[in-house]
Amino acid sequence: MLYCCVRNVCKLKPSPCRVTLALQHTRRLCSSPPGEAVDQVRTLLELCVDRHYVSPGQPNTELLQRGMSCCYGPLGMELRRNLLQQWWLSVTGSTQQVFGINTLSSSKGTATDGLRIVESEQLKHILGQKELSNQQLLQKIQTLIQRSPSLRTGFLQGALEQFVPSLELVNRKLPFGLAETGLCFQPSDGSAEVTQASLVWFCPPRTSSQWLDHWNRQRLKWWRKFSLSPSDFSSSDVPEEELEEAASRGVRILYRFPWGQEPVETLWSRGSTELLHTHNGVRAKLQCRDGRKSVPHVISVTGNMDRGVMAFLSNSLQQLKKEDSKKKMLQRKVLKLHPVLAPIKVALDIGRGATVELRQVCDGLLQEFIEANISTWPGYLQTMPTSMEQLNTKYDEMGVLFTVVINENTLESGLVLVRSRDTTIKETKHISEIKSFLSTYISAADNL
Amino acid sequence: MLYCCVRNVCKLKPSPCRVTLALQHTRRLCSSPPGEAVDQVRTLLELCVDRHYVSPGQPNTELLQRGMSCCYGPLGMELRRNLLQQWWLSVTGSTQQVFGINTLSSSKGTATDGLRIVESEQLKHILGQKELSNQQLLQKIQTLIQRSPSLRTGFLQGALEQFVPSLELVNRKLPFGLAETGLCFQPSDGSAEVTQASLVWFCPPRTSSQWLDHWNRQRLKWWRKFSLSPSDFSSSDVPEEELEEAASRGVRILYRFPWGQEPVETLWSRGSTELLHTHNGVRAKLQCRDGRKSVPHVISVTGNMDRGVMAFLSNSLQQLKKEDSKKKMLQRKVLKLHPVLAPIKVALDIGRGATVELRQVCDGLLQEFIEANISTWPGYLQTMPTSMEQLNTKYDEMGVLFTVVINENTLESGLVLVRSRDTTIKETKHISEIKSFLSTYISAADNL
Repeated sequence: MLYCCVRNVCKLKPSPCRVTLALQHTRRLCSSPPGEAVDQVRTLLELCVDRHYVSPGQPNTELLQRGMSCCYGPLGMELRRNLLQQWWLSVTGSTQQVFGINTLSSSKGTATDGLRIVESEQLKHILGQKELSNQQLLQKIQTLIQRSPSLRTGFLQGALEQFVPSLELVNRKLPFGLAETGLCFQPSDGSAEVTQASLVWFCPPRTSSQWLDHWNRQRLKWWRKFSLSPSDFSSSDVPEEELEEAASRGVRILYRFPWGQEPVETLWSRGSTELLHTHNGVRAKLQCRDGRKSVPHVISVTGNMDRGVMAFLSNSLQQLKKEDSKKKMLQRKVLKLHPVLAPIKVALDIGRGATVELRQVCDGLLQEFIEANISTWPGYLQTMPTSMEQLNTKYDEMGVLFTVVINENTLESGLVLVRSRDTTIKETKHISEIKSFLSTYISAADNL
Repeated sequence: MLYCCVRNVCKLKPSPCRVTLALQHTRRLCSSPPGEAVDQVRTLLELCVDRHYVSPGQPNTELLQRGMSCCYGPLGMELRRNLLQQWWLSVTGSTQQVFGINTLSSSKGTATDGLRIVESEQLKHILGQKELSNQQLLQKIQTLIQRSPSLRTGFLQGALEQFVPSLELVNRKLPFGLAETGLCFQPSDGSAEVTQASLVWFCPPRTSSQWLDHWNRQRLKWWRKFSLSPSDFSSSDVPEEELEEAASRGVRILYRFPWGQEPVETLWSRGSTELLHTHNGVRAKLQCRDGRKSVPHVISVTGNMDRGVMAFLSNSLQQLKKEDSKKKMLQRKVLKLHPVLAPIKVALDIGRGATVELRQVCDGLLQEFIEANISTWPGYLQTMPTSMEQLNTKYDEMGVLFTVVINENTLESGLVLVRSRDTTIKETKHISEIKSFLSTYISAADNL
């Protein structure tokens, strides 16, 4: 239904269809074999729009493909939320000392380039001063822009500034880290937003190389943990000619998209230059108690969580051939997202039987699932009649882990049908044990 | 220690101390009695900086007092995170149909005012074109700014745009809502960031007034749930002369700060004008199946989560008189944050005994708590010798719910001392039961 709607929008507007645009972008990026990759990407993007991962009506899919933040639908929003939550837990919940911080996304710095926030009212006010010469107006505008706050492109600078107040937390002992997640802004092509997750790690100079290796291993392991085909994630050293100015070594964690490899997380070993510069070279403020009184080295770990969403969507889409009830061969599309990442864990639907009573049972189960923080799709609230087959197709494409169907049998015996996305097997379970079954299943998958 | 550091920074810099600045601001805001309120606020702000809720070194406390986002330290960051999480659960986890979405924080709209993101490189490029006349340069600059993306001031517009793609989710049935949280930007005084939490609720026109009342009750109940003195939160109708242009009715949820009442959440009944305008007046696209085919009315619920952080910090600080071991009267300061909001649930420390073995026991407990998602302060990693009394003072000011002390006795009997922040009572418990004790305590407080 939504799909038709997207198509109609495309027909109505004189501009080319958004999906087409995104595909053209794919073609540009594609290495080989282009045809197959384009098909793969087209299928994925259509499914993402269809199943409320990505919102239609804007060049959204193109943004997402470029590793930028886009308008997410409810499922995409929840997927990114889960991904950020897992990143956070893995980085701050390790036994390493990592503290979360929050810095401002704009600052009145002395930087001369980058993105500036300009109040258009102020500009209008300047331009309205008819008594001034054009030369004076230009000067006033330059001053306005120089004094305007600039938007951050990353979290590094904020963490470097917070290093000194954080020293007391750790009693001046190294190593420790500062973590932050949120929006950053990139000055490419107008402006573009990226959801970044950042760890800035402060360690003794002599162990900085080992720490880079440590975090590289940890992060790669993390990406692979949620992946259906872990080998699509790899890590590789940044060639010397691509090193950032301050960095002595760099590693990228890459994901193999249908159109080629792209970095999902980047690690730099940055030495102490930027830290010293941020604190005006006052070494005494920065020295730590690690035997020698040295200024720490900095390792930055920066993940692009929007590209991460795209990577896991791309990684989890399986297309399987299956026979329908009329022996016709069909493509079955399943979004096999990891149980921890899947935005919806269970869908609740009703089969045959007295609707009012069945709905009451569903209401009770829904409440129980909500209280246990199990994200639930209340399919039974939809009044549109749908066959079980259509429902399964829909939920498979949404990546819903389990479908629970309540029918007249439930009212007598307390038994319900539970269908698994991954095995397609339907099991009969007692209604009282579903909640703990789901919780156990999800946490088991988490601890694998 | 940090406190001294803040003082030193103040001495070094020619500018007035940040805390002083913030207090001047308080004085301006204060109604009565000014002296007492200023003292109260000073104590709170000093504690916030001391105990890593707010970062020093920037006019942070003033930002927070004005209801703006600021640089948070690890504890403040975690408090806001918990607050946002609870807001989200209460709004999306109700049995009402609320979907989370994510829209972009900047958009290339046709708006003529507000904040614009301008690339300073592009501006420099224009100004560098020596062959152009000043008049031409001014025109080019105007065009650049008109074409620059504008930053959002709230989530309403994004939700209105997402209304149509969301209709399929609910099978065109009202009511339902779209929720989003994140940064918004306010064009006051340069630019300022606010962490907002937004629910945009679409309902049949004839029930919009009841729905406004419903959400008002729900939201007020929510704020009071986490409050030590619930009556400090109240709600009041917005007087007619202060209504927003599109709104027919408004309600504010207010918190009584020492310097006066300020809104923490605002609800507007907005009719359908803005929704129609967003979709170019095409009623057919917007009509829902609620008996009559009507265009829904919109209710917006917008919380300021930064002011919420300040409200709960202010609400939870208790100052009690107590005798120290030398019979001297002291002020005991306790940050009695609600167990669900408290950024740190438990601190782990060691008493007398063989340090290496005691640390191993702590490492084990820390790991266990981390796995159970219980936020833990690993006090035993600090190598500075401190008396138990000093530790208790510190943890009370941090708002840590429980302190667990492992000593030589633990190695033999498995027994540990657990001190409660709220009762100051020390209980002996077996090490194996602490995790479930903590989990039960926190979830019981949640369900009260």
